[in-house]
Amino acid sequence: MEVILGISNRHVHLKEEDYKVLFGNIEMEKVKDLVQVGQFASNLTVDIETPKSKISKVRVLGPLRSYTQVELSKTDCYTLGLDAPVRTSGNLDGAEMVTIIGPNGRVTKPCAIIANRHLHINHEERIKLGLLNVEKISIEVGVQKRAILHDVYIKETPDGVLELHLDTDDGNANLLKTGDMAKLII
Amino acid sequence: MEVILGISNRHVHLKEEDYKVLFGNIEMEKVKDLVQVGQFASNLTVDIETPKSKISKVRVLGPLRSYTQVELSKTDCYTLGLDAPVRTSGNLDGAEMVTIIGPNGRVTKPCAIIANRHLHINHEERIKLGLLNVEKISIEVGVQKRAILHDVYIKETPDGVLELHLDTDDGNANLLKTGDMAKLII
Repeated sequence: MEVILGISNRHVHLKEEDYKVLFGNIEMEKVKDLVQVGQFASNLTVDIETPKSKISKVRVLGPLRSYTQVELSKTDCYTLGLDAPVRTSGNLDGAEMVTIIGPNGRVTKPCAIIANRHLHINHEERIKLGLLNVEKISIEVGVQKRAILHDVYIKETPDGVLELHLDTDDGNANLLKTGDMAKLII
Repeated sequence: MEVILGISNRHVHLKEEDYKVLFGNIEMEKVKDLVQVGQFASNLTVDIETPKSKISKVRVLGPLRSYTQVELSKTDCYTLGLDAPVRTSGNLDGAEMVTIIGPNGRVTKPCAIIANRHLHINHEERIKLGLLNVEKISIEVGVQKRAILHDVYIKETPDGVLELHLDTDDGNANLLKTGDMAKLII
C-alpha cells in the first residue's frame, strides 16, 4: 500500500486573538490550497525570534485555528536554541517559548513544537486499511538513501485525505520531496 | 551489535595547493581530535558561496588531503541552491560547484557532495563482524523518532575506528547526537 508524501516546511498556525496582534487589519488571503481539505498557504509570513537567533519569513497557514502553534524542524530548533518537543499538532504540552513577529505587533508564548511524523486519514479509509486500533505505523521511503521510519502517528479527521506528512529534516535526510510515495508497513 | 554514532556537521577538507590560496601563511592548528585516528577539527573556517547564497564559518578538518572536498547536508544544499550528489568521501564524481572563501583568497571548483551514511571500520573488525563481502548495511537508531536507515556504506581503512557517521539531516530527523548508539543490522 503506497501513499503520497507531503514534506512540511516550518510554518505557523494562528488563533484569531494572536492574528489581530500580529497583523491588525491586514487580511489573510489564500495563495495555495494544501492537500488537506480547507487548509491553505496564506499570503502572510512572520519572523520567529528567540534570545539566540531569528528565522525570517515563516509561512502562516490558514484558516485560523483555536490555538497558535509554530511547527519547526530539529534543525530550526538548533538555529533558534530551542529544545522543542515532538508533538501531534494541537498538543502544546511542553512547547518552547518563541516570539512571533508580524507587521503590526509581536506575540510571545510557549507554542513551538516539532510535529511528529503522521498519516492523515479519514474514518472510512482507516477501517479499510485495518488501522482502527492502531496508533502508529511504519513507512518505507527513499531511493538513494532508503529508510524505514517508525513512529508515524495516525491522524484521523472527518475529512482527512490520505497523505503522509514528514518535516524537512525527515525529507532531506532521506532525499524525499512532496509528491514522492511511501510504502505503509502495517 | 551496537556502534557509536558521530553526527558530522558540514565541513571542508583541503589539499595543500588550495589551502595556500585560502590561508596563505596562516598555520592550521588542531583544536580537537576526532574519533578517527589522525583526523582533527582545526582552528580554521571558510565561507561557502554559491550564486544563490552563502554559508559562513564552515569548519576546516585536518590534516590536509590529496583532494579538496566540501561536505554538506541536503538542507545546506537547498540553502545554497545546489543539487550535490551523495558520495563516499573522496569520490567527487558529479560534485557541485562552490566557491570556498578564506582570509587570503578564494577557490572555485566542483567539490561539494553529500557524504553517504558510512561505517568506519578496520580490516580485523570487518572480518570479525562478517562484513568482508558486504558493501552496505542497515542500522537501527532513535528513541522518540525511531528508524532503520539503509544504505550505510562500509568504509574500511587500515586504522579505522568502529564508528558510524551520519550527517546532520539524518541526525536531526531521528533526534540523534554524537555519542548515541546505533544497532547494526547485518
